Amino acid sequence: MNYTNRRSVRSYRKDTIDNQDLSAILQGALRASNTGNMQTWSVVVTRDPAKKAALAPSHFGQPMVEGAPVVLTFCLDYNRLEKWCDASGVEGVHYDSMMAAYIGTIDAIIAAQNAAVAAEDLGLGICFLGTTVYNMQGIIDVLKLPKGVVPVTTITLGWPAEVPPMTERLPLEAVVHEEEYRERTAEEVRALYSEIEANPANQAFVRENAKETLAQVFCEVRYSPASYREFTAKMLDALRAQGFGV
Amino acid sequence: MNYTNRRSVRSYRKDTIDNQDLSAILQGALRASNTGNMQTWSVVVTRDPAKKAALAPSHFGQPMVEGAPVVLTFCLDYNRLEKWCDASGVEGVHYDSMMAAYIGTIDAIIAAQNAAVAAEDLGLGICFLGTTVYNMQGIIDVLKLPKGVVPVTTITLGWPAEVPPMTERLPLEAVVHEEEYRERTAEEVRALYSEIEANPANQAFVRENAKETLAQVFCEVRYSPASYREFTAKMLDALRAQGFGV
Repeated sequence: MNYTNRRSVRSYRKDTIDNQDLSAILQGALRASNTGNMQTWSVVVTRDPAKKAALAPSHFGQPMVEGAPVVLTFCLDYNRLEKWCDASGVEGVHYDSMMAAYIGTIDAIIAAQNAAVAAEDLGLGICFLGTTVYNMQGIIDVLKLPKGVVPVTTITLGWPAEVPPMTERLPLEAVVHEEEYRERTAEEVRALYSEIEANPANQAFVRENAKETLAQVFCEVRYSPASYREFTAKMLDALRAQGFGV
Repeated sequence: MNYTNRRSVRSYRKDTIDNQDLSAILQGALRASNTGNMQTWSVVVTRDPAKKAALAPSHFGQPMVEGAPVVLTFCLDYNRLEKWCDASGVEGVHYDSMMAAYIGTIDAIIAAQNAAVAAEDLGLGICFLGTTVYNMQGIIDVLKLPKGVVPVTTITLGWPAEVPPMTERLPLEAVVHEEEYRERTAEEVRALYSEIEANPANQAFVRENAKETLAQVFCEVRYSPASYREFTAKMLDALRAQGFGV
C-alpha cells in the first residue's frame, strides 16, 4: 500500500475493468475483518450506464458515478443471514435494531476500504461517495435492495485519467492522542489547521463561497450541523423502511 | 496487500512496536479517504499496561487487549472541528445529530482499516475489537474522551506469536450482486453456507454450544437480535452523553 502518496481520483479513462481485476478487488473486500464472521454486508456492482444514470441523482449528480466504468455500492445486509437462519431451523430471527445496523455498517465500510486498497494496488483510481448516507432511499430503489439491506458507502473506480493534486491532511499530532484524549487549546487548534488554511486552493475556496475563513465554508456552507440534522431524518426513515428501528 | 491470505492475529510476542513503525501505521490512517476532508476522527494510542488493564473489561476481558503491545482506539471526533470553528469566528457550531455521528464513524472506520493494512504490510498482526460499540461508555471513561468524541472501533497490534488458521469466508457470489440485488433462495443460501458449516472447527463450535446448527449458535447464542437490542440502548445512551441525539 502506498500510504503517503495516495489521492482520490475522480476522472477515469473509458477502459473497462476486466473481471479478473474486479474479482481480486472483491476478494480483498471479502477477506477483510468483520464482526464475529457474521459477514453482514453485500456489494452491488454497477456497470450498466442506465443504472449509473439512475444512481447519479442520489449522489447529487457527481460526475464520477456516470464517468466510472464500475460503481460499487456497499451495503449492510441481514437479509442473507436471516434467510440462512430460516433454512437452518431458526425461524423468526429478525435483526431490527440500530446496533445491528451499526455493526453491519462498520463491516461494510471495512470491506469497502479493503476493496479500495486492493484497487489502488492494481493501479486503479478510486473515490468514496459519502453522499450514499444522505440519499439511502434513492439508492435502495434503484438497486432494489430488500428488507435488511441498506447502502452505506459507494466507491467509483476506474483507470485514472489524471493525477490530481493530493488533498492536504492535518498533521499527525492533530488526530493522535497518547494514552488519554487531550483537548487541544484554541492556540494549538489554530496551529494545527494553519497549513490547510494557507493552501491556495483552500483560500480560493473561501473566496468562491464569499466567506472569511475555511472553517466557515466547512461548517456553515458545506457540512453544517443543520444540514446534518435534516439528513438524519431522511437516514432514519430509510433505516426504518428497511427494518431497523431506533 | 495480501488479499487472500490474511487472518486476524490474537497472540503477540512481547516485543514493542517502535515509533517509526507506529508512525507509518498512523500515517496510513491519516491518508485514508474521508468525508469532505472534515477529518472528524481521532485515535488514542494505549501502551501503558495499567490503561490496557482498565480498557480490558469494556472488551469483555478479551486477552488481546492486555496481550498486545499497542492498542489503537479509533473515535469519531467533532471536538477538534468545533474548536477550530470557535477559533475561526464561527461560534456556536455543534454537531449533535445521528448523521454527524454516522459520518464520523464511517471516517474513523476507513482510517482504522487503512491502519490495519499498513500494520499488516509491516508484518504485524492485528485484531479488530467489535466490542468497542457495545461498551462505548466504559472506553469513554478510561480514555477521558470529551464531548463530541465517541469510540467506534479498536485494533490491537503486535508481532505475531502464532500463525492462526484462516477464518473461512462465504464464497464471493454470496456477497456480490450484479446491477441489482437478487434475494437468494433457501436452496442457494444452504449451498452458500455449506462449506462454513462443514468446517470441523465450526462443527465443534456447534457441539460446545449444545446447538444443532451453526446458524443457531450465531443468531441465538452469540449475536442474537435481542442482545443487539439491549446493546442499542447502551450505545444510544453513550452517543447522547457525548452530544449526539436521535
